[in-house]
Amino acid sequence: MDKEKLLELLKPQASQEVLDTIKDEMIELHPESLADLMQEFDDEHLLPIFNTLDTEQRVAVFYRLSEAAQLHLAKSMRFSRLVNLVAQMSHDDRVDLLQSLDDELSEKVIRSLAKVEREDILRLSTFEEGTAGAIMTSDYAWVEETNSVREAIKKIKREAPDKETIYTIYVLNDQRELVGFVTLRTIMLASLNDRIEDLMTIDIISVEASDTQERAAELLSKYDLIALPVIDSHKRLIGIITFDDALDVVEEEATDDFHKMGSVSLGRMSLAEAGIGTMILRRIPWLLILIFMNLFSGAGIDFFSDTIQSRIGLLFFLPLLIGSGGNAGAQAATLMVRALATGSVRMKDWLQLLGKEVFIALGIGLIMALTVSLIGVAKGDSEIAVIVGLSMVMVVVFGSLIGMLMPFGLQLLKLDPATASVPLVTSIADIGGVVIYMGIATWYLSVVLT
Amino acid sequence: MDKEKLLELLKPQASQEVLDTIKDEMIELHPESLADLMQEFDDEHLLPIFNTLDTEQRVAVFYRLSEAAQLHLAKSMRFSRLVNLVAQMSHDDRVDLLQSLDDELSEKVIRSLAKVEREDILRLSTFEEGTAGAIMTSDYAWVEETNSVREAIKKIKREAPDKETIYTIYVLNDQRELVGFVTLRTIMLASLNDRIEDLMTIDIISVEASDTQERAAELLSKYDLIALPVIDSHKRLIGIITFDDALDVVEEEATDDFHKMGSVSLGRMSLAEAGIGTMILRRIPWLLILIFMNLFSGAGIDFFSDTIQSRIGLLFFLPLLIGSGGNAGAQAATLMVRALATGSVRMKDWLQLLGKEVFIALGIGLIMALTVSLIGVAKGDSEIAVIVGLSMVMVVVFGSLIGMLMPFGLQLLKLDPATASVPLVTSIADIGGVVIYMGIATWYLSVVLT
Repeated sequence: MDKEKLLELLKPQASQEVLDTIKDEMIELHPESLADLMQEFDDEHLLPIFNTLDTEQRVAVFYRLSEAAQLHLAKSMRFSRLVNLVAQMSHDDRVDLLQSLDDELSEKVIRSLAKVEREDILRLSTFEEGTAGAIMTSDYAWVEETNSVREAIKKIKREAPDKETIYTIYVLNDQRELVGFVTLRTIMLASLNDRIEDLMTIDIISVEASDTQERAAELLSKYDLIALPVIDSHKRLIGIITFDDALDVVEEEATDDFHKMGSVSLGRMSLAEAGIGTMILRRIPWLLILIFMNLFSGAGIDFFSDTIQSRIGLLFFLPLLIGSGGNAGAQAATLMVRALATGSVRMKDWLQLLGKEVFIALGIGLIMALTVSLIGVAKGDSEIAVIVGLSMVMVVVFGSLIGMLMPFGLQLLKLDPATASVPLVTSIADIGGVVIYMGIATWYLSVVLT
Repeated sequence: MDKEKLLELLKPQASQEVLDTIKDEMIELHPESLADLMQEFDDEHLLPIFNTLDTEQRVAVFYRLSEAAQLHLAKSMRFSRLVNLVAQMSHDDRVDLLQSLDDELSEKVIRSLAKVEREDILRLSTFEEGTAGAIMTSDYAWVEETNSVREAIKKIKREAPDKETIYTIYVLNDQRELVGFVTLRTIMLASLNDRIEDLMTIDIISVEASDTQERAAELLSKYDLIALPVIDSHKRLIGIITFDDALDVVEEEATDDFHKMGSVSLGRMSLAEAGIGTMILRRIPWLLILIFMNLFSGAGIDFFSDTIQSRIGLLFFLPLLIGSGGNAGAQAATLMVRALATGSVRMKDWLQLLGKEVFIALGIGLIMALTVSLIGVAKGDSEIAVIVGLSMVMVVVFGSLIGMLMPFGLQLLKLDPATASVPLVTSIADIGGVVIYMGIATWYLSVVLT
C-alpha cells in the first residue's frame, strides 16, 4: 500500500481501530515517507500514529519531523518513552531537540540519561551555531591501529546499531589521536589476519570543531566523502560530519546568499514561518538605505533641471539610461558574487577579470547605444540620439565595472560579497547614470551645438 | 610528507630522478590531493608525474583532474594504457571523458574495449544532458532476492572492486526488476543463513532515467541516501546516482538560478572560461528586452511632461519613487523564487502568501512614505511631501505584489521562475512607479489644490 492510500484511510483523523488495521502496512514504509504522512495531520493526531510505530521506527521517523511536530510529540508522549527516544537518537539531532525543548523538560530528560550520554550532550551543545562542531555527531565508528581485521569486524558489528555510519571507520592510536581511516569496503576485501595499520589511509582530510560548516561541506563535496572527521587541537577525534549534513549546508548557504542578493536576511527562518512584523523588520533596513542612495540621483537631476527644462525631450530617455547602467551592473555583480562563493574565481584574479570586463562592457554598451540612438532618430530628434548613444556606452561601462569590482571590494573589507552587492551596485550605477546623461546633455547642448 | 613539501620538490618541473625519489611519498596521498598537486603543473609535465602512479591511483586521480588536463593526458599517454584506464573508470565518468575526446580517438578506444563495456558506454551516452540518466552509473552492486546472506556477501566481495558503491545493494527478482534494497550494514549484522528477501526494505525511492537531475538530487538529499536507483518503465534497474553527484547538482543548480536572477544564462560554462564574445552574447538579450520595458517608463514621463514643467521640484523625487518600487519588488521576488526552488513554499500557498504580503507591503510602504515625506518637508515643500508620501505607499505595495506574484505566474506558465523574475518585476514596478507618482501629482496639483 502506498502513502496516498494510507493517507486516505487515516484522514481526517486516525482512529485507533484504523491504526491497528494498517500497522503492518506502515512498517513497510520508509521513515521519510512516514514522516511525510504524519506532517499531513494536526498536532493532536500525531501521538496515536507515532505510538503505532515500533521503537526503531520511532527513532528514524522522529528526527525527520518538523521542529513544531517534534516539540508537540516530545511534550505529549510518556516521559520514559521520551528519555528512551533521546537516548537512541543520533547524537547531533538530539542536541538540536533538547535545545528547542523548554529548559525544565530538557534538564529533566538529561538528568534521566546515563552519565556518558549526559556528558556527550553537554559537550556537543557547547559549539556555536554555524561551526563544524555544531553539526557534528559523536557516534562515529573507530578501531585501534593495532587491531587485526578480525578484531575490527567484531568491534564494528557489536557497535554498529549505535553508529551514524560504519562505512568509514576511523583509526585511533593509544593517545586517541586520529592516525588514519579505513572504509568498510577495504575491510570486507581484506583477509581476517591483516592488520588495520597496514590497510589504513593516512592522508586524512579533516576539520577542527571551530571551522565553519561551509568549510566542512566544501571538503565533503570536493573529496566525495561519506563522512568528515572533526578533530581538536591535539589531533584527537571528537566527531564526524556526514554527507547528508553537507547537502543541507550547501542548500542553506545558497538560500542565504539569494536572500542577501534580495537585500534581506532571514537567517534560518523560513518564509512561511516568519511573521508579518518580522518580515517588515527584516526587509525595511536595506530599502531605507537605498532611499538615501536614491536621494543622490534626485540631487543630480535637480542640479541639471535647467538642462531638462530647456529640452524636456531628454526626460523620455531618463529611466532608460538610469535603468540600463543598473541592469548591466547587477548582472556583472551577480556573476561575480556567485563565482567567488563557489570558488570558480579567486581574489587574485581581479585584475585579469577587470581587463576582460572592460571589453565585454564596451561591446554590450555599443550594441545598446546603437539601439537607443535608433529610437532617438525614430522620434525625430537626432541631437538627442547622439546624446543618448554617447551616454549609454559610458553608463553601461561604468555600471558593469562597478558591478564587477564591488564583490571583490566587499570581500577585501572582509564583508560578505553577497550582502549588498547588487542593491549597492544598482544604486551607484543609477547615480552615475543621471550624472553621465545630464552631464553629456548639458555639454553637448551648450558647447557642441553653440 | 604533505602536499606543500612535495610541490616544492617537484617545481618548476618534475624530473624523472626526483619523481623516483618521492614515489613512495606520493602513494600515501589522497587521490584528490594528488590531483590538486598535478593541477599546479603545465600540461607537458603532467604525463611523467601521472606515470609515476600505480594503476589504481591513476584511475582515482584521473577523473578528479580538470577536463583540459584529462584531455591532454588521454592524448599523450600510451594508447593501451588509455584503454586500460577507460575500462577501469567509473561508468559515468568515462562516458563524460569519451564525449570530450575527439571522435576518432574516442571510437578507437571504444572499439578496443570488451563488448559488454562497449554496450554499457553506448547505452549511457544516449541520455540527454540534465536528466538523471546522464549522471547515473551502471556499476551498482546487486543480489537476487532468493540469495542467502552468505551468497550475497560472496558475490559482493567478488564484485566490489568494480562497483561505485557497495554500501547500498539492490535486490532484483528473476525478471531483473528492482524489488528492494539492503544496506551493507544490515548484511553485516545479519546471520549468514538469513535470506535477502526477509531483510530487504521494499519501500524503494527511485527515479526514471528521463527525470531531471534536480529531482534526483532532491530525493537523495531528502531521504539521506548514499545512492538512488534509476529504473526504466518496466521497473528494471538501469543505474544508480550517488550522493556526491547530488552535491554537484545542488551547487550547479543554485549557480544557475543565481545567473538567471542576474538575467544571464551561462549554463555549464564557468565565468573564467567564457570568452569575451560569448559573454556579450549571453548578457545582451535581457538588457535589450529591458530597454524596451524602460521605454514605457519614458513614455509615462513624456505623457506627464506638463505636470513636471509646471512643478520641476517633482523631478527630485522621481528616481527615489521609481527605485523604491523596483527594490521592494525585487526583494519580494527573490524571496519567492528561492522558496519555490527549495520547496519551502508550494504553488497552492499563493493566496495565503498574497494576503500576508499585502500587510507586509503596507507596513514597509508606510515607513518609507514617512521617511520621504519628512525629506519633502525638510526641502520646504509640504505639497510635494504629501504627493511623494501618498505615491510611496502605493508604489511599494504595487511593486511588492508584482514581485510576489510573478514567480507564481511564471511557474504556472511552466516557465522557470528564476529566469526573468527580478528584471521583469523591476521593470514593471518602474513603469508603475512613474504612472502612480505622476498620476497622483497631476491629480493633487490640479484637483485638490484648486
